[in-house]
Amino acid sequence: MPIPILVTLNSNYLRPLKVMLKSLFLQHPGVSFDLYLLHSSILPAEIADLHHYIEEHGSDLHAIRVDDHMFEEAPIVKHYSKEMYYRILAFRFLPPELDKVLYLDPDLLILNDILPLYETNLSEHLFAAAYHDRIPLTEINRLRLRTQELPAYYNSGVLLMNLKLQRERICEQEIFDYVRENKKRLILPDQDVLNALYSTSILKIEELLYNYDARFYLYYKLASGGKVDMDYVIRHTAILHFCGKRKPWNKNYSGSFHALYKHYERLALPK
Amino acid sequence: MPIPILVTLNSNYLRPLKVMLKSLFLQHPGVSFDLYLLHSSILPAEIADLHHYIEEHGSDLHAIRVDDHMFEEAPIVKHYSKEMYYRILAFRFLPPELDKVLYLDPDLLILNDILPLYETNLSEHLFAAAYHDRIPLTEINRLRLRTQELPAYYNSGVLLMNLKLQRERICEQEIFDYVRENKKRLILPDQDVLNALYSTSILKIEELLYNYDARFYLYYKLASGGKVDMDYVIRHTAILHFCGKRKPWNKNYSGSFHALYKHYERLALPK
Repeated sequence: MPIPILVTLNSNYLRPLKVMLKSLFLQHPGVSFDLYLLHSSILPAEIADLHHYIEEHGSDLHAIRVDDHMFEEAPIVKHYSKEMYYRILAFRFLPPELDKVLYLDPDLLILNDILPLYETNLSEHLFAAAYHDRIPLTEINRLRLRTQELPAYYNSGVLLMNLKLQRERICEQEIFDYVRENKKRLILPDQDVLNALYSTSILKIEELLYNYDARFYLYYKLASGGKVDMDYVIRHTAILHFCGKRKPWNKNYSGSFHALYKHYERLALPK
Repeated sequence: MPIPILVTLNSNYLRPLKVMLKSLFLQHPGVSFDLYLLHSSILPAEIADLHHYIEEHGSDLHAIRVDDHMFEEAPIVKHYSKEMYYRILAFRFLPPELDKVLYLDPDLLILNDILPLYETNLSEHLFAAAYHDRIPLTEINRLRLRTQELPAYYNSGVLLMNLKLQRERICEQEIFDYVRENKKRLILPDQDVLNALYSTSILKIEELLYNYDARFYLYYKLASGGKVDMDYVIRHTAILHFCGKRKPWNKNYSGSFHALYKHYERLALPK
């Protein structure tokens, strides 16, 4: 059975998506994936190119174009488009027979097996996600990682979704109401909604394995007393997440995983 | 025709050798290599294991054990063993019909095609090697890279060898005499000998392509006005060299290519 993967993005993220997918395919020889792409504006030629790329790797693409009129009542926050709702309301657009899907951001690298994550039993939880909780350590403050700027909450970049339960429990109107009432306070609207409305229905997964924040190599290493070193990450971390504004595909990025990202980028995009 | 590669090392470097070879094989699908290993003390079981590893990748191993009595007259320098001579006198041990070989240190990663290097016309040169010359730049001093500690000379970690000409021109006795007379001044004896006796017979190759010093990512980037960034290295540099005492396979290493090294290490040594 192919493993269902969900992504929601626009044309600007097609190149990072290919890099993420290349790393996914390379870590899972012999496994095939059904990639569901929710979007509003990706061009047919771009879809065709992505389709070809995914088929070459023995997997399949299902592009689902979302009509704007489906979100007529949805409030807009700042510069965010209505695409901010695609992730949390994906269950509306995915095939009704699909009970479970793994949502992945395009700013990830897959370094090890994600099947144990996919196979996690969600039972009565709507989602599974990693909780990014940075304990302010003396050593860390010394490194000036500015932990006080890091909100400790569920990160929405990797979400295992219980679609069956979501269809029963998630109410579109409740989300729109919440957004309308809190418009001014929302920073990352989709992630804020997830945390505000559903945090009690989220199963916590191990961030070191499934949502390792690539900015914090030194933090993880120190906080673990040295255990979570580079060897650990390369051999155990399944999902490396390039969180934050600075992205490894942009000029002048720097970070512990820059060379590794560029390595996968070259494999995915020979140019 | 398989490409002949030379390595000279002891058991301590068998794991890094496998990592280097894995990166070599991965960058050259469909190419086969004849690996010549000059050694004095590697165990038969270790040779058998390496043989198997190399054959699995479609290449071949020729282990050549050097008898110590062949260097009876050779002077010893500090804590260095007589193995320090294997590199520069390799022509004595390699098959007489071999005219050319590419010597590679085990602390390398191969990131791109090395065939253009192998095909370099050596004409009347004994060796081809990269010259490590660090121009002291203001920006660099600011970064405290301590350029004054870096000797500017040919690095012996990557050497294209003109074996045919070496058999005619390199005189063992001349080398032993030089070492005896300069014993106290030698720091890296084999590299010092190469520079002292043969620097006028060395063809200079591009260090950015064939002997990129992994410690100096920021140096290369600044010195090139930003051109030699991570994208450049991953797409153009054929040989990345982990020069210096700190090695990426040791605990507590850190550096710009740490994650990339560990990635190849995991591919080579799944454990």
